[in-house]
Parts: sequence; C-alpha cells; structure tokens
Amino acid sequence: MERQRHQGMAKNTSMRWRLPLVCLLWEGAMIVLFGVFVRFGAEADAHWEEEKREMNLTSDMENDFYFRYPSFQDVHVMIFVGFGFLMTFLKRYGFGAVGFNFLLAAFGIQWALLMQGWFHSFKDGKILIGVENLINADFCVGSVCIAFGAILGKTSPIQLLVMTLFQVTLFSVNEYILLNLLHVKDAGGSMTIHTFGAYFGLTVTRVLYRPNLEQSKDKQGSVYHSDLFAMIGTLYLWMYWPSFNSAISDHGDAQHRSAINTYCSLAACVLTTMAFSSMLQKKGKLDMVHIQNATLAGGVAVGTSAEMMLTPYGSLIVGSISGIVSTLGYVYFTPFLESRLHIQDTCGIHNLHAMPGLIGGIVGAITAAAATEDVYGEEGFIKAFDFTGVYRTRTPSIQGGFQAAGIVVSLLMAFAGGAIVGGILKLPIWGDAAAENCFEDGVYWEVRGAGGGREMALWARGRPGSG
Amino acid sequence: MERQRHQGMAKNTSMRWRLPLVCLLWEGAMIVLFGVFVRFGAEADAHWEEEKREMNLTSDMENDFYFRYPSFQDVHVMIFVGFGFLMTFLKRYGFGAVGFNFLLAAFGIQWALLMQGWFHSFKDGKILIGVENLINADFCVGSVCIAFGAILGKTSPIQLLVMTLFQVTLFSVNEYILLNLLHVKDAGGSMTIHTFGAYFGLTVTRVLYRPNLEQSKDKQGSVYHSDLFAMIGTLYLWMYWPSFNSAISDHGDAQHRSAINTYCSLAACVLTTMAFSSMLQKKGKLDMVHIQNATLAGGVAVGTSAEMMLTPYGSLIVGSISGIVSTLGYVYFTPFLESRLHIQDTCGIHNLHAMPGLIGGIVGAITAAAATEDVYGEEGFIKAFDFTGVYRTRTPSIQGGFQAAGIVVSLLMAFAGGAIVGGILKLPIWGDAAAENCFEDGVYWEVRGAGGGREMALWARGRPGSG
Amino acid sequence: MERQRHQGMAKNTSMRWRLPLVCLLWEGAMIVLFGVFVRFGAEADAHWEEEKREMNLTSDMENDFYFRYPSFQDVHVMIFVGFGFLMTFLKRYGFGAVGFNFLLAAFGIQWALLMQGWFHSFKDGKILIGVENLINADFCVGSVCIAFGAILGKTSPIQLLVMTLFQVTLFSVNEYILLNLLHVKDAGGSMTIHTFGAYFGLTVTRVLYRPNLEQSKDKQGSVYHSDLFAMIGTLYLWMYWPSFNSAISDHGDAQHRSAINTYCSLAACVLTTMAFSSMLQKKGKLDMVHIQNATLAGGVAVGTSAEMMLTPYGSLIVGSISGIVSTLGYVYFTPFLESRLHIQDTCGIHNLHAMPGLIGGIVGAITAAAATEDVYGEEGFIKAFDFTGVYRTRTPSIQGGFQAAGIVVSLLMAFAGGAIVGGILKLPIWGDAAAENCFEDGVYWEVRGAGGGREMALWARGRPGSG
Repeated sequence: MERQRHQGMAKNTSMRWRLPLVCLLWEGAMIVLFGVFVRFGAEADAHWEEEKREMNLTSDMENDFYFRYPSFQDVHVMIFVGFGFLMTFLKRYGFGAVGFNFLLAAFGIQWALLMQGWFHSFKDGKILIGVENLINADFCVGSVCIAFGAILGKTSPIQLLVMTLFQVTLFSVNEYILLNLLHVKDAGGSMTIHTFGAYFGLTVTRVLYRPNLEQSKDKQGSVYHSDLFAMIGTLYLWMYWPSFNSAISDHGDAQHRSAINTYCSLAACVLTTMAFSSMLQKKGKLDMVHIQNATLAGGVAVGTSAEMMLTPYGSLIVGSISGIVSTLGYVYFTPFLESRLHIQDTCGIHNLHAMPGLIGGIVGAITAAAATEDVYGEEGFIKAFDFTGVYRTRTPSIQGGFQAAGIVVSLLMAFAGGAIVGGILKLPIWGDAAAENCFEDGVYWEVRGAGGGREMALWARGRPGSG
Repeated sequence: MERQRHQGMAKNTSMRWRLPLVCLLWEGAMIVLFGVFVRFGAEADAHWEEEKREMNLTSDMENDFYFRYPSFQDVHVMIFVGFGFLMTFLKRYGFGAVGFNFLLAAFGIQWALLMQGWFHSFKDGKILIGVENLINADFCVGSVCIAFGAILGKTSPIQLLVMTLFQVTLFSVNEYILLNLLHVKDAGGSMTIHTFGAYFGLTVTRVLYRPNLEQSKDKQGSVYHSDLFAMIGTLYLWMYWPSFNSAISDHGDAQHRSAINTYCSLAACVLTTMAFSSMLQKKGKLDMVHIQNATLAGGVAVGTSAEMMLTPYGSLIVGSISGIVSTLGYVYFTPFLESRLHIQDTCGIHNLHAMPGLIGGIVGAITAAAATEDVYGEEGFIKAFDFTGVYRTRTPSIQGGFQAAGIVVSLLMAFAGGAIVGGILKLPIWGDAAAENCFEDGVYWEVRGAGGGREMALWARGRPGSG
Repeated sequence: MERQRHQGMAKNTSMRWRLPLVCLLWEGAMIVLFGVFVRFGAEADAHWEEEKREMNLTSDMENDFYFRYPSFQDVHVMIFVGFGFLMTFLKRYGFGAVGFNFLLAAFGIQWALLMQGWFHSFKDGKILIGVENLINADFCVGSVCIAFGAILGKTSPIQLLVMTLFQVTLFSVNEYILLNLLHVKDAGGSMTIHTFGAYFGLTVTRVLYRPNLEQSKDKQGSVYHSDLFAMIGTLYLWMYWPSFNSAISDHGDAQHRSAINTYCSLAACVLTTMAFSSMLQKKGKLDMVHIQNATLAGGVAVGTSAEMMLTPYGSLIVGSISGIVSTLGYVYFTPFLESRLHIQDTCGIHNLHAMPGLIGGIVGAITAAAATEDVYGEEGFIKAFDFTGVYRTRTPSIQGGFQAAGIVVSLLMAFAGGAIVGGILKLPIWGDAAAENCFEDGVYWEVRGAGGGREMALWARGRPGSG
C-alpha cells in the first residue's frame, strides 16, 4: 500500500528510462561540445612558461589560479553543501534536496561553461577556460539552485534538468546583456544571480500551481533534526558569502573590499533578523525558518555594491534593512503570495533572494551613481567601473542609470523565461508526483526500511497533523 | 501543559520586546559608530593603485588579502560551525547552540572591529580595517564562544548579548595590555583567547550558580545523533586549527611554522585522548565527550608558541600532555568543580580551554625564554619577537618573564571581569529560564510539532532518567 | 542483557589496557623519532629571511606555503570529514566511522611524515618538513582510510592502528618505487593512493573473512538520517577533489590544470551515476549508496592524468565512464565479491577506489604516452614529465610503459602487503567483536541511554529485518 501510494495513484513517476536517457544523452552532448569547443586557457595550459615570458611575469604566483582558487572552493561549497543542505529542512525530502541539487548543479556547471564561454571566453573558435570560468559556472548554477528552492518537493528530477538547461541558457543571455551591452557592474550577482534566479523560479512555480497541494501539507515542514541539517547549509552560505561576492572582482583592493563589505552586511543582518523573528511571534520565540534564511539576505543585498566603495557602515545599513525585509516577507508576504497570487514558494526564495536581490540592484545603482573621483582616486575610479575604451565618457550618474536598467532587464528576462519554461515543465511527460506525494523522498528514492514508511513516520511524528 | 511548562512557571522568559529592542538599538549604535569611525584600510581602498606605487609593490599579490584570506575563512568556519555545532551535543538544545552562537558572534564581531580598532588600527580619527581586522574580530568573539560553553543552556539570548558586549570590551583591553604594554607574543591566543575566555566564562557561571539544576538533568546530555552533529563541530575546529594559530602570524616562515606545529600537536593530542578516554572507563569504552573536546586541547596549548621555533617534536610533546590533562579534567575535575566549587560548566570549557590555555601560556613563556640567535638566525630572532625600537634590548629570558606576566594579567582580568559581568547577568530582568527548563530549546524557539514536546521526547528517549 | 550482548559473548572486546598501551607507546615513539629526525624545512624555519636572500626571492609570497596551504586544508577536510562522514551511513556505527577514522588518521599522519620523510625529505640526517609534507602525509593516510572502508564495522581500534602502521610503511615504499625508481607521475594518486589502498584493504578483508557476518546483517545498512550524514562526507570529498588532485602538482599551470580536469570529470560522473542508478533499479528509483559513492569515482579516475594535458573533454569522458563502472560495480560486482570470493567490502571500496583507480592508472599511462611537444610546448613537455637529468632521453611512449608498470607494482604491493597484514590482524589478541556484534558502536563506545539499546533501536527501527 505504501508502495502504491508512492507511485502516485494515477501518475507514473517512474524515472527508469526517462532519467537515464536524459542524463546520458545530455552528457554525451557535453562531451561532443567540449571536444569541439573547450580548451585550457593560457594560465592552465602547459605553454604557461612561454606565456609567462611573454607577459613579463616573474612568478607563478601571478597565475590567476592563486588569486581566485580559495574563493572558488568556497563558492563550490556554497552551491553544493550550502544550497543542498539549506533545503534539507523538509522532514521527508532530505535526499531530494541534497541529491537533486547535486544532479542539477553537476549538469548545470558543464552547460554554463559552454554558454558563458561562447559569450565571454571565445577566441579563434575555442572557449579558453580557467579558474574564473569555473567560478562563473558555479554562479550561473547558483541561480538555478535558487529557482529550485521555489519548486522544491514538487517536481521530478527530469523537470529539474530541463529547467536547468533553459535557465542556464537564459542566465547567460541576460548576463551578456547586463555585463557587455549595458556595461553594468554586478560581481556578486544581485541582479544576474539572485533577482533573475528568484523571479524565474517564482514564475515557474506560478505556472506549475498545484491547487491541491494542501494534501501533502503534513510533509511540508521541518522536524527538529532536519532543521539542524538545514543550519549546516545556512552557515556555510553565510560564512562563505564574502568569497562569493569577491570571487570575480578585480585583483587587489576590489576583492579585499568586497569581502569586508559582505562580512559587515551579513553580521548586521543576523541581528535584525533575530529581532524581527522574535517580535513578530506572539510569544516572542525565534523561528528557525527566519534564522535559516533571512540571515543570508545581507549577502544578497550587497552583491552588486560590495566591490564598490560602499563603506562598512553602508554595508551595515544595507544588511540591517535586508534582514528586516526578508523576515517580514516570511511572516506576511509568503502566505499572501500563496493564497492570492497562487505562488507556492517552498523555501521562500522571494524573501531570501528576490526582494534582497532587488535591494541589491538598487543599492548598486545608487552607490555607482554616487561615486566620485575623490572617494575612489582617479585611477581607482576608472578601474572600479571600467570606464575605459568606449565607456571612457560615462559618468557615475549615467552608470547608475544603466545599473537600474540592469534590474529591469533581469526582471523581464526572468518573467518571460519563467513563463515559457514553466509551460514546458507543465507538459504531462516529466513524471512529477501527484499532489499528495509531494515533499516525499519515497517517490524518486530508494528509502531503506520496510516500505520506507515506518522510519520516516518516526522522523516526522513531531508534527502529525499541523502544517 | 507542555506550553505552560515552557514558559517557565513563575519566570517570564518571553523575549518578544526585550530581544528585539536590544538587537535593534545595538545594531543602530553599530551603524552610527561605524559611520563615524570605520573606513577601509589602504589595501581595501580604491586608492590601492596609488598605494602600490608608493610602497613600490609590483603585484596585487602583495595585498595582505592574499596572505590571510584563506586562513580567515577557516577561522570564520571555526567560530560559526565549529563552536556552533560542537555545542549541539545536548539532546534538546541544538537550536540554542547553533542559533545563539550565531547571534552573539554576529554582534560580537561588529563590536570587536570597533574596540580592537580603537586600540590597534586608529589613525587620524578613523579605524582603518582590512582582512587582519576581520580575523582579530573573529578571534575576539572566539573567546565569547568559549565562555558561552560554560553557561550553555542556562541563559537567555539577551544575557548572551550583554555578556558579549562586556566580554569583547574586556578582551580588547586585556589584549592591548598584553600585546602593546607587555609586548607579549600570542598569535594563536592561548592567553588572550583561551585562558581569558575560559576563566571569564567559569567565573560567570559560578556567579550564576543554580542550586536546583539537577531538575533538568535529564536534558543535560547527548543522544546518538546529537553526538554526531557535535562531531561536525569538533572536526572543523580540529582541521582548521592550524589556520587559527597561523592566521595573524608574520608573512612567510612564521605562518608556515605555526601551521606545522599546530598540525603536529593536534595529531598527538588525539592519541593521548583516546588512550586516557579508554583507560579511565571501567569497560575501556571510548567516551564521545572526550573525543569531541579533549582532542582539541592540542590546538589551544600551542596557541602562543606555534609561531616560535617550538619544533615538531616539541609540538608532539605539548599536544600529548594537553590531551591527557584535558581528558583527566573531564573525568575528575568537572565533577569536582560542580560539587565543591559550584561551577556548573556545561561544555567542560575548563578542560578544553582553561587548562590547555594555561599550558599554552607557560609553553610560550618557556619557548620564548629558550630562544637563541643560533636557532632563529640573527634576523629571524629579531623578527620573531619584534625586538625592535624600545624593545631592542630585550633578552629571551626577560621576554619569557613578560610572557608569564601575560598569563597572570589574563587570569586577573578574567576573574574580575567575570565577577562583574556575572553580577550584571544575575539581575532578574533578562528572562532566563527556571532550572527545570534549562537545556530546552522550547523556551526560546518555536519548535515544530504539536507543542514541540512529542518529537523531542523521541529524540531524547534514549536517556530517560539518567544523567 | 544488552550489556552482555555488547561484550561479545565469548570474545573479549575490552580495550581498557590494550588501546591505551598501543596509543601511548606509539605516541612516545613518535616523539622520540621526531626528536631525532624531524626539523622545519627552509621555508618554515626562522632563517627564512636569509634563505630568501640566497634564493633571490623578492616576496614572502614565494614561500611554498602560499602555493599549497589552501589546497592542504581542503585535503585535510577530505581525510577527516570526507572519509569520516562518508562512512557514517551505517545506522549504528556513526561513532566508529568518524571516531576511528579520526584516530587512525591522526596516528597515520605522524608516521607518514617520518616514512615519507626518510624517502623524500632526508638531508644531513634530518627530515626537513614543510606544507608539502603535510599534504603527502594526508595523502598517505587517505589510502588507509580507503582500506578502512572495506573492514568498517568489523575490526577493533587496535587492529586499525596496527593496519595503519603497516600500510603507511608499505605505502611509502610503493610510492618510492613508483615516483623515484620508475619515475612515474601520479600527483592525484590513482595508483599510489587509490589502487594500492583499495586492493590492500580488499585483501585484508578477504583474509579476515567472517562466514557468519549475516548475523549482524540487520545493522549493516543505513537509515534515513545516517544517509544524510553520509552525504556531508560525499559532498566534501566531491567538492574538494580538485584540490586533492592539484595539491602537489607543480606551481602555476599544472595546479591550475589539475583543478579544471578534476572539476570536469566529477561533474560528468554525477550524471552517469544518476543515470545508471535509476536504470538498474526495477522501479527506477535512485539509490543513495550510488550517489554517495559512485559520484566520486570521477575524481579517482583522473588522479594520475589531471595534471597532464588531459583536456576538459577528455576529463568528461573519463568521468562518465568511471561513474558507470562504479555504479555497475555496486549493483553486480559487490554481491559477487562477497558470495564467490568471500570479500566482504562494507563500503564498496572496490567500486569507488579500486576499479576507478585502475582506470586512473591506465588513463594516466595513455595520456603520458600520447604527449607531444606540440601540445605541451618544448619547455612544458620537459617540465610536465620531469624529463631532466637521467630521464632526459625518455620518450612519451616509454613513460607510458613505466606508468603502466606503476599500476602493476601497486597491485602486487597491495596484494602481498594486504595478505601479510591481514594475517597479523587475524591473531586473536586484538579484541575484535563477534560476528553478531559487528557494525555496532556499543562494543567500543560509551553509548548514552540506559544500555544504549533503546535509542539506537529507535534510530534503526526503519529496517527491522531486511538487509
């Protein structure tokens, strides 16, 4: 009976041929495309000794690897452990959270290396990659992990792979428009990663609206230890966010400054989150949902401006505000989105990524518009905003305008893309589960134990009927 | 009924207005003080290009960021995941362990940036910060996390914030006395962080002595999986301790040497801990409490001397001894402290930080006193101990004496400070729980499930009556 | 009664005097040997300033510490958290998995510093150590952690220490033969670490064959949350593998290239693992055993070739194949090994390390044999394979032959060594548990709760009778 229930009544959720087919075909495609296009960049190629001589570099330390590899590893942890474990808060969906995140990210980084490579690292018919490409691929996939948060527990692994394919593509186009056409700065991705990723995911989940989702409401919550697993994700995201925002900034002061601003913003965010979490609860008790999520909003909200001269106190202000907005969002906005707009947002990405991402874009636009040569120094000013070549004549206020335009473009791309991809995912061929089997690992995973039910019941028993 | 019990009978533990008020007011104060005082140091400022030219630096790699950022991130993990998860061993206090540690550390690092900044990075009315300040702020907060270990489960979040405010202040004063007035070396903080933090916390818990604490004795222990969560904390502390002790050492050999000494000391410590854990138990079984804690004593005990020429075998000796002392402490000393001296030390910080911290201070004094130009080289000798300027004429034996004085000062500051702060925390306004509700997340946290009781009971069932 | 059962019927599993004796004597021996032999290398010694001048180095950044320390820390995490938590998948053996791994690795790194030091860093009667030695010691211990996986749950901690002593010794001899006598390249250790470690462990477990192991079959599986703990181990191994394979490569392009190749291989491996995991299951459900293990095969399989010009698409191919082979191994090969060859391989190291290790050795031989000056550049070619001195005249095809010989030597050393060490471990003096008490923490650990049984039963209840 357990088994029957898992198979989803009328719905066929078996992945046996569909998932292997997609995985193997797509991986095959990756191999072919990598074979045709991807090669090592000069700093990873065995010709490096010659390159060094040509570039007049005196030390191997000048290899970009040493400037960025530690940050890359931190970002890598954020994508796989950070996002993966953050989503294990659901009592019966830990395998899906960590495992599907693993799957989609592993595919996504390959496809992102290609897509971003064609746009940014294409030379003489080849994509030349180095550590910065790896970071950017992880970033791109980060936006998919964000979108995954909205539909967590309600989609099949194939749907996630399909979404990844399209979202990575659209991400890369949007990123190209922002960075290359609008010449916008967005090193920590408030716009390209968070705003785009979150509104994309929210649009997808809107299209995939499930009117009967309350049938699995008993599973759509946490238990004591699943909340602790989720805190592993939270803390790794929180701790490594300074690396996230500084990973692809310019060498030297820009990386240094990004890390400091992000550190400050995140610290402030924790305090305002705790304050509002306690204040908004009748008995003043803290809510793990807020601590797990809203404490991170400070990292999102300085994503654009961290490498600018935001200043430490500016970061504290931004972090404080974003913690408040995010916590308020969990208490008031998420229920509203679900009941009125039919947006079922499992992880509350609207509060953690969408609104803070918008704040981040706006703060970035303001910080850019307020830049002066006095604050940055003559050279620093040009370097910080790349006001060289055709952009030589850009003024801060014009830059601010373009930054603001970047927000709008990201939003439009997210809505349009999300609507189309949501429509594709709505096709009845992807093997998603029936409403009563959502948020249930047993659908796609071999769960140990007789039928998998008993032990899970033990896990979940703390919350038998309530949401 | 469950609910009633959580509200703590006679005691009002509601944080609804108190906690938000403290968090928001203090964060507001941080913003104002940062606004007035904190700016980017030269290496994080957009004027870096000019700075580079002035300092004749040929590469961005010379930016201190690249010397210290990887170590900073490791230290950051130790503070938030290391200490946070180490304390999740309590069966019903995982949220409090991770969550309150998160709260106090997030506030503490901001206040530490200011306090330490005024003492060490103040120039022309501004505090100029860089990555080293971030590390030092984390270090300072580390001493608060240590003290938290003594009072874990018995205090309200407001008490923790109040303690953090005062302890960070006193830490900075003590650090200033040691490093600047006594010209003492203590890069890994055996004295400033561990000795000070631990004896401070022990004094506070002595003042806050709860005669009826056995009422919550059933909750003051671990269960199987909470011990596994705690091992996450242990291992991250253990693995990253080489970064902790080397993070603010001089560039080059000193950082390198600190890491090696710490690596060796910790490895040895594991073996002696296992040996004594097994030996001191009638049936020879290993005790997770020792493995989780005493294995770390080796890192504490080389905190002062790791950057000196302690040598790898010296490190093995120090690590071996500290593992033994720490394990003996858990078996014999902690019960004694509680029954005779009324010091209720939840995590056993006396064994993990206080005694190994003293060992560390003493080993540091001896190592300094035994230093010779032969071993260090002429230049290395001067560089290692900063025997320049007014300290040009200091001899190793005098330095050893000052190092010893540093231990005494740290102890005095800890006792005096702890007594005062303990007295403040004893005021009946902070909302701490009644004795029978200690070590219980339900007091300050929204725990999922009907009343929160049932699931937690499941967690805890393994140990119904015993301690 | 519970207690009685734990003591293992006829067998005496008490560690009370045996374990402390071994730990203390051996640690004493380490101290003496370190005292006689181990000193700081030039880059960690206080004479560094003079060294710098002599070597004409202009910056502290040239200290090897900065080239390798971030990778060292990642490797350190892989050894202690990665392997430790990967093995917590067993429902009742989490303490043993994390704790014994901690013990054997802490001893092993000390002994490895000596053994590898005598072979590779011996100068004027002293072993001079630096960060590269720490990495190599961790690597060496990695091979012991691998072997531990085969005998997990079936051996006493003393047996593990004895095995570590011998395996580290043999590892160092084998490594010396490969790297110094055969002049083989193996920076990521496909041969020296994985092939050797895995076949060594498999031979040991064959010698220790337990015919009645089905008596503890109910404990030889996972439960829901133990699978989540194991995923922490999996992900840290997966994420940090690029650091593992690049940690001791040449500075500059080689480290950079190793990281990229490994990143690509691992990403591909995840997709083919998921594909085959689903395909090989009647209902198409994914199996956590495969996800936890086979996804890592891609890192093993590029261990030798990652620093060569394998190219990103080459890495995708290798990763894809190894994921398939490894998953097939779990489904078909492991049962065969157990039933026909009496090789009881608890963690399936044959699938995760042995077969992918062989693949890695072969891919390395082919990649070396296929090397051309055109691809590597004249200088790069010589540098990549150290074709200097007596090896000046080696051609790629000869190098390929030697690489292949390295596989054979590693296999022979593993079989011979494993047989001898297995024989030693079979002596009835080491306190291993009876068959019905295998995979049970209560034998060697103090488990909280009345008798330790009840809570564990709760943990394990999901799978009462099935394997």
